[in-house]
Amino acid sequence: MEKWDGNAGTPSAFAVPDWMQIQFADQKQEFNKRPTKIGRRSLSRSISQSSTDSYSSAASYTDSSDDETSPRDKQQKNSKGSSDFCVKNIKQAEFGRREIEIAEQEMPALMALRKRAQGEKPLAGAKIVGCTHITAQTAVLMETLSALGAQCRWAACNIYSTLNEVAAALAESGFPVFAWKGESEDDFWWCIDRCVNVEGWQPNMILDDGGDLTHWIYKKYPNMFKKIKGIVEESVTGVHRLYQLSKAGKLCVPAMNVNDSVTKQKFDNLYCCRESILDGLKRTTDMMFGGKQVVVCGYGEVGKGCCAALKAMGSIVYVTEIDPICALQACMDGFRLVKLNEVIRQVDIVITCTGNKNVVTREHLDRMKNSCIVCNMGHSNTEIDVASLRTPELTWERVRSQVDHVIWPDGKRIVLLAEGRLLNLSCSTVPTFVLSITATTQALALIELYNAPEGRYKQDVYLLPKKMDEYVASLHLPTFDAHLTELTDEQAKYLGLNKNGPFKPNYYRY
Amino acid sequence: MEKWDGNAGTPSAFAVPDWMQIQFADQKQEFNKRPTKIGRRSLSRSISQSSTDSYSSAASYTDSSDDETSPRDKQQKNSKGSSDFCVKNIKQAEFGRREIEIAEQEMPALMALRKRAQGEKPLAGAKIVGCTHITAQTAVLMETLSALGAQCRWAACNIYSTLNEVAAALAESGFPVFAWKGESEDDFWWCIDRCVNVEGWQPNMILDDGGDLTHWIYKKYPNMFKKIKGIVEESVTGVHRLYQLSKAGKLCVPAMNVNDSVTKQKFDNLYCCRESILDGLKRTTDMMFGGKQVVVCGYGEVGKGCCAALKAMGSIVYVTEIDPICALQACMDGFRLVKLNEVIRQVDIVITCTGNKNVVTREHLDRMKNSCIVCNMGHSNTEIDVASLRTPELTWERVRSQVDHVIWPDGKRIVLLAEGRLLNLSCSTVPTFVLSITATTQALALIELYNAPEGRYKQDVYLLPKKMDEYVASLHLPTFDAHLTELTDEQAKYLGLNKNGPFKPNYYRY
Amino acid sequence: MEKWDGNAGTPSAFAVPDWMQIQFADQKQEFNKRPTKIGRRSLSRSISQSSTDSYSSAASYTDSSDDETSPRDKQQKNSKGSSDFCVKNIKQAEFGRREIEIAEQEMPALMALRKRAQGEKPLAGAKIVGCTHITAQTAVLMETLSALGAQCRWAACNIYSTLNEVAAALAESGFPVFAWKGESEDDFWWCIDRCVNVEGWQPNMILDDGGDLTHWIYKKYPNMFKKIKGIVEESVTGVHRLYQLSKAGKLCVPAMNVNDSVTKQKFDNLYCCRESILDGLKRTTDMMFGGKQVVVCGYGEVGKGCCAALKAMGSIVYVTEIDPICALQACMDGFRLVKLNEVIRQVDIVITCTGNKNVVTREHLDRMKNSCIVCNMGHSNTEIDVASLRTPELTWERVRSQVDHVIWPDGKRIVLLAEGRLLNLSCSTVPTFVLSITATTQALALIELYNAPEGRYKQDVYLLPKKMDEYVASLHLPTFDAHLTELTDEQAKYLGLNKNGPFKPNYYRY
Amino acid sequence: MEKWDGNAGTPSAFAVPDWMQIQFADQKQEFNKRPTKIGRRSLSRSISQSSTDSYSSAASYTDSSDDETSPRDKQQKNSKGSSDFCVKNIKQAEFGRREIEIAEQEMPALMALRKRAQGEKPLAGAKIVGCTHITAQTAVLMETLSALGAQCRWAACNIYSTLNEVAAALAESGFPVFAWKGESEDDFWWCIDRCVNVEGWQPNMILDDGGDLTHWIYKKYPNMFKKIKGIVEESVTGVHRLYQLSKAGKLCVPAMNVNDSVTKQKFDNLYCCRESILDGLKRTTDMMFGGKQVVVCGYGEVGKGCCAALKAMGSIVYVTEIDPICALQACMDGFRLVKLNEVIRQVDIVITCTGNKNVVTREHLDRMKNSCIVCNMGHSNTEIDVASLRTPELTWERVRSQVDHVIWPDGKRIVLLAEGRLLNLSCSTVPTFVLSITATTQALALIELYNAPEGRYKQDVYLLPKKMDEYVASLHLPTFDAHLTELTDEQAKYLGLNKNGPFKPNYYRY
Repeated sequence: MEKWDGNAGTPSAFAVPDWMQIQFADQKQEFNKRPTKIGRRSLSRSISQSSTDSYSSAASYTDSSDDETSPRDKQQKNSKGSSDFCVKNIKQAEFGRREIEIAEQEMPALMALRKRAQGEKPLAGAKIVGCTHITAQTAVLMETLSALGAQCRWAACNIYSTLNEVAAALAESGFPVFAWKGESEDDFWWCIDRCVNVEGWQPNMILDDGGDLTHWIYKKYPNMFKKIKGIVEESVTGVHRLYQLSKAGKLCVPAMNVNDSVTKQKFDNLYCCRESILDGLKRTTDMMFGGKQVVVCGYGEVGKGCCAALKAMGSIVYVTEIDPICALQACMDGFRLVKLNEVIRQVDIVITCTGNKNVVTREHLDRMKNSCIVCNMGHSNTEIDVASLRTPELTWERVRSQVDHVIWPDGKRIVLLAEGRLLNLSCSTVPTFVLSITATTQALALIELYNAPEGRYKQDVYLLPKKMDEYVASLHLPTFDAHLTELTDEQAKYLGLNKNGPFKPNYYRY
Repeated sequence: MEKWDGNAGTPSAFAVPDWMQIQFADQKQEFNKRPTKIGRRSLSRSISQSSTDSYSSAASYTDSSDDETSPRDKQQKNSKGSSDFCVKNIKQAEFGRREIEIAEQEMPALMALRKRAQGEKPLAGAKIVGCTHITAQTAVLMETLSALGAQCRWAACNIYSTLNEVAAALAESGFPVFAWKGESEDDFWWCIDRCVNVEGWQPNMILDDGGDLTHWIYKKYPNMFKKIKGIVEESVTGVHRLYQLSKAGKLCVPAMNVNDSVTKQKFDNLYCCRESILDGLKRTTDMMFGGKQVVVCGYGEVGKGCCAALKAMGSIVYVTEIDPICALQACMDGFRLVKLNEVIRQVDIVITCTGNKNVVTREHLDRMKNSCIVCNMGHSNTEIDVASLRTPELTWERVRSQVDHVIWPDGKRIVLLAEGRLLNLSCSTVPTFVLSITATTQALALIELYNAPEGRYKQDVYLLPKKMDEYVASLHLPTFDAHLTELTDEQAKYLGLNKNGPFKPNYYRY
Repeated sequence: MEKWDGNAGTPSAFAVPDWMQIQFADQKQEFNKRPTKIGRRSLSRSISQSSTDSYSSAASYTDSSDDETSPRDKQQKNSKGSSDFCVKNIKQAEFGRREIEIAEQEMPALMALRKRAQGEKPLAGAKIVGCTHITAQTAVLMETLSALGAQCRWAACNIYSTLNEVAAALAESGFPVFAWKGESEDDFWWCIDRCVNVEGWQPNMILDDGGDLTHWIYKKYPNMFKKIKGIVEESVTGVHRLYQLSKAGKLCVPAMNVNDSVTKQKFDNLYCCRESILDGLKRTTDMMFGGKQVVVCGYGEVGKGCCAALKAMGSIVYVTEIDPICALQACMDGFRLVKLNEVIRQVDIVITCTGNKNVVTREHLDRMKNSCIVCNMGHSNTEIDVASLRTPELTWERVRSQVDHVIWPDGKRIVLLAEGRLLNLSCSTVPTFVLSITATTQALALIELYNAPEGRYKQDVYLLPKKMDEYVASLHLPTFDAHLTELTDEQAKYLGLNKNGPFKPNYYRY
Repeated sequence: MEKWDGNAGTPSAFAVPDWMQIQFADQKQEFNKRPTKIGRRSLSRSISQSSTDSYSSAASYTDSSDDETSPRDKQQKNSKGSSDFCVKNIKQAEFGRREIEIAEQEMPALMALRKRAQGEKPLAGAKIVGCTHITAQTAVLMETLSALGAQCRWAACNIYSTLNEVAAALAESGFPVFAWKGESEDDFWWCIDRCVNVEGWQPNMILDDGGDLTHWIYKKYPNMFKKIKGIVEESVTGVHRLYQLSKAGKLCVPAMNVNDSVTKQKFDNLYCCRESILDGLKRTTDMMFGGKQVVVCGYGEVGKGCCAALKAMGSIVYVTEIDPICALQACMDGFRLVKLNEVIRQVDIVITCTGNKNVVTREHLDRMKNSCIVCNMGHSNTEIDVASLRTPELTWERVRSQVDHVIWPDGKRIVLLAEGRLLNLSCSTVPTFVLSITATTQALALIELYNAPEGRYKQDVYLLPKKMDEYVASLHLPTFDAHLTELTDEQAKYLGLNKNGPFKPNYYRY
């Protein structure tokens, strides 16, 4: 679910030598900032950045605030007697099952996949270890993988994002799930370890979101890669790590970059952000968009979505960019392209969508006008230099959940949302439809890697074959009652295309 | 200038074995249809499809209708005594010069290129033979190439599109130009031949639009390729031919595919069509857009532009697609995705943007309601099956230039625009700003191929290096008074980017 | 804040003989439906419809759930020793004061009014009795009226909407306020009575929202009208009642219809609903708008706002209308105009914005597809025939606050929002900026009526003079850093206008 | 067809004592500027401003440039032997008839009127004298009036706008028409006089566009008003004159103000200008809209239409306004509200839509950047101070029809369109659909005034009854295949409405 913008990290061909170190440093700070109860010795520091992002979108439906016991200290069994899991409270399974059923209704593509692949079981024999957000949508994915023949073990990729009820429902259904909301860092690695370090079971596929699971296996069980057929990775961060490994010659299995698939970039980033920027701003500030002056930093897919939505709602939008092509697009789309300094004194809202760091600096923050809202739609928590606001002369006032007023000595207030972390993760929800696209892509990537003939994929990072992207898209068309046109034989011949696709050259941009 | 749409021909990886034959057949028919005075023996039949497209956008500014003598039969000299050219009337040079001066004002990127490259002459020694539309904008390009050190010889890529005054001005300035408005097919090849078949001069670079020049050299002077450093090709058709050659192992020099550069696809196709669809419909029919029901066939860049414009003007827009990814984009953008048959009875306008053939068939035309407007924004003249309307029971009535009423026996009238040829070529003008982007890209492609160190480019078809795309874009930002942001050292390091770009991985979609 | 749409009630010239009876009947039902603790004998049944609308937009900032004692049974004094008020808990005053201070920052027009009128005290001698929602914004209005010289006594116009902290802050500041969240119907009338039935104080101005206060005085203290200079009424309902009185010859003082002022209709209804429809749908359902099919019933200002927003977010929008002029506007704006039956089977969302009743009937609800969302943005709770869903064969399931699944025997679920009451009151917040426009209009209406020379206003219902509308607008322009152009003398003469306005004839439509 | 903007003339309640004098002065200047062959003694100077506007939208379809004889000196008879007309060339009748037939297809409302009123002949006995643009659409109107029972005599309201072929066709059909393209001022009044000064025929209804016909009768034949039942006037100018007369107590018959009817203001002005601004700019300059900076002066209906269209095409739009309410609308719609001086140096296009004079002054023109385009969509030719550009140091260069470059001594060029006259009259066409709405309104206004019972209308200026506006709208809905919803009895009762309308109070703004 992490967003990545056009300005951003360019995982591919460029030297990023000290990247991991930067990340680790950032993480330490993050952990120091928030006191968490960590009793045991920390197993590792190399947790991914995204694993500690706050994640408010999925509310917990049952009250579990009373139970302070760590799940690791509990003895729990599901109704079939299995205890190969670790969740908050197995008794919440029923609530979780209902959530999963609701999600199923809005994930028709996965349900179709279950039906179509019923006979063949394309994942028969697959042993998938997964590390993702544990939500109702993930549960639909896991149960689909299972229906396709796979065995799964699962941990959470984020210490806050697990829906305990859903984890309980999965455990009750026999999935070895190790996850709960509010894990410590130590818990985090312990859960991952419990997924892979199993007597008599060894994974042959990895589904990762952020790269922590992959990292752990590299570090602790490098021999496992001998049996692993491939890695499917969804996040910018994880993909970046994979390209690093590949560049360093250390990637020892094929990996599928799901993050840069067209269905992720052009749908999740563009269309989803178009809606969530409005939602996030409204839920936190109740502001009116009409007539407001907004500067959006970065005009990649995320920035494009934000700009389109705010313009449509009557805001006056300025754009900053570093890339002249995206800049020219912003111009042609009707946005004034400026440097941040030119408009920083006059704007009502500043939104970062860059994938970059320190795009909004303390100097900018000093010059903003009273009541200016500042938030981040890009990635991570580095785009706004929030650390620079932690100085004695500034007062922080928490006015709502996820909303801080930072107050200057002269009384000026800046409204900082989600402490500079991702607004759409923290302050709005993600529609199931979007998650459905991503989950279906993940499932197909797993099937492709698992079934690919020897030699099709080498020890490198791949994008999903176009035909699979097209298949994912086609599975989502019925939602809109959309009717695709089919090529006639004559037309297919004229175009030199197979009637069933793929329909475009690889370089096609959509 | 030819538009290519997402549904379209996919020049790359797919087998189109009988493509050229199809084209030749089409051409014959085209020529048979319109009686043209062809006295001499035709040199060849393999003229490209685009070379006979009607082209009304550039009006002629001086009256030359009185002069019926073929330029080939005239003896003309420019003021310096040279007669190494063949144009309609060298005396029109002054008018043409004024047109060129006006165009210069709106092509700041080429003018900047002249200035920046003044010292180095990156094209010193280049001998460029070109075959493109001959307009004021092309003249600015040619004079820029000349200023960069190149020698040029030029013919027209289309028998209708030459601006005689501009050709005269170029001839007067010493450019060997062989082109006039209203060439016969035989003239067409004669002009091309005069460009390449020169005593004591041999081209080392080719700039082509449609592939006819390249085709001619392949056919007549294959040995010339020994000295040729590369081909720069702009059109879908020409690029398609090059990929064919490459696939067949017959491409003997590197070629640059300018057609698929991001500045062409995402700017020319998207933004330009967004405007020209409205312009073309208004100029031909004076219709009101508000409340009209429109079906747009194809949701590539051209279709996206058409749909966005018509929706913005208050039309109700339906979309047809064969590609599920583009189809899903149409859904998310708010268009009902239908099969043409579902809406054909109710729509007021049908627009094709597919790159395909027979998208609108006689059966569709039979079912349209009275006064339905039918036009083509896609490519060529094959998208609407116009030939099927040439039957005895239907009456054609020319009601305006480029506007025919086709009348059914029951009195129903279909309004056919430009006889199914490209609406935006035939019935609207192309803004100089767009031509400037393409011309700048061509110039940079020539510089790149000419100066590339041995081995950088093999005998294959290439896309322009991303850095050059970015450079083209950056040269056009001043037009919008747009201010690009620069990366700090710290940010560049964080992103693993060079501060001057390229800023994106190759697979980035914009 | 109640919305009124173009299809709606047309308060003016038409016979609505049994209107009040209908309302009373409706109310009874409403009260029966929800068990409320009513111990004392009910004083009256004629509570306005809007007074029992649920109102979730203003959250309570302090926890008062523990205190079950009725405020009427408590003895409270403010710090100055006064007990002429009745609020939940006077100790919450500090919290409320902070909310008021925040609201002041976003109501620059009222603050400007305080400053400009500082010297003259245009309301000196005014004794205003008010009955409105009691929120921070109302507090800013009351303190402005006080600063302009008025004395105020205040009750709530809605039994749910009072912010207890704000009421406490007002009481602490010396305002006789009688209101708390969760009043019974009996409490409601008791509070109103405490405002008007005071020893030694008699109101000379009424500020009403819904007409209940006016109704009460008519019923209980008709003699008071001898001293009353005028009524300012904001709501559709209240205005309707006033026109009824006027028609019946029973209106005995001038009344100002604030509801139909241009700043209310064209700003509050259009722009506010443009944003709140998205907000309300997102907060309740987390749905994605892109590609969804929506039918909007009614294309008045509210409908126009909803349609514009949803179209901009990529929904496909259909419109139903009864008025051919609004219908033609919908067509020209690019919406298919249909009858509800034509699209009811295919749409994902149904939104009513009509001001009418039973626009969505049980028959429609029976035909909707699974998961269809149904909500009301129009008025009251009559637009959707919710009562028809309270039949044994349908199961209601409350899935979230304000969200019910109504389940058909075959498993089909309809998602009903806010039980058919106003979505934007119940499920989204109202931006302070909008409330500022309305509150400023109310203040100016009070000033105008209070200071009008004898004879300017008769015993009738008036719209605010255009010049005052313009003044309200001008006070809100600085928020947008907007710079108004001034007429030159020559231009004013040419146009026949006073340089300071009014700038338009009365019939101008904006 | 003349457009009027919200900033404009406010015909109603304000003193414009010297208005007519101003007009006459302007006219004189206009006539002096353009040498016209005026041989005979001028009958009058009080020609309306609009009567000399250039009018290019309706092209002449037959070549009549060869015939220099004045129609007044010709002897012509139609095929029935009548010579009671004066047109350019009666032989062109056939061409004109075809134009009328095409127009009939797009004016379904008038055709429906003919059909519905076939039996009753609501205009039986009406003797209508008309003075409007003489186009195919007017011909459809005239023949409809005739079909409804009226006798008509007609002159042109503009010396340039008559379509000679249409006039011929009308004359051939027996209509006494007195009009040709290129009348002198003297011809203009002569034609009007021939319509009213007839032996044995006296008009009892006036249909005027600009007020010149009305003025002529007032001046020359005041006694005629005894028999005249009413005046229907379409233009701003004419309505202004009527309000002046009414104010001065000199209006001796009822008059219907068609200009301010909702179907004119909200459809013609808003939707038509939304399209014609794009069309007019494209046809004259071939400019690209994307990324261009535009300032629109005036945010009435015309300004709103222009802004919406340009924003949708990717322009960056600034707005100037004098009215704070319209200004606030501009803000909420997402446009920066500025004074012209703030942006004049940076914009690419300046568009006036004010109804005011000297909105763009020489000082502004001096400060514009090179290539800035200046045009007028508002009214008349006074909005841009074009006269101030007629000074010796500036060079005018006509680069195309309706396009002048005005060149400053330093080489800066301003692109002035239509010499500051109305862009949409001069450089784009008006869709028949829009003309259909206006013509239908005129027909209904004539019917209403002619049939109104004694006393319904006094000697004053009226707006069309709302029910008739609604009827006009309803007649145009079938064009869009739009389906109106009908109120149930219960709903009508609830709303207090008649099921057939009118549906809104008079003050409703749409």
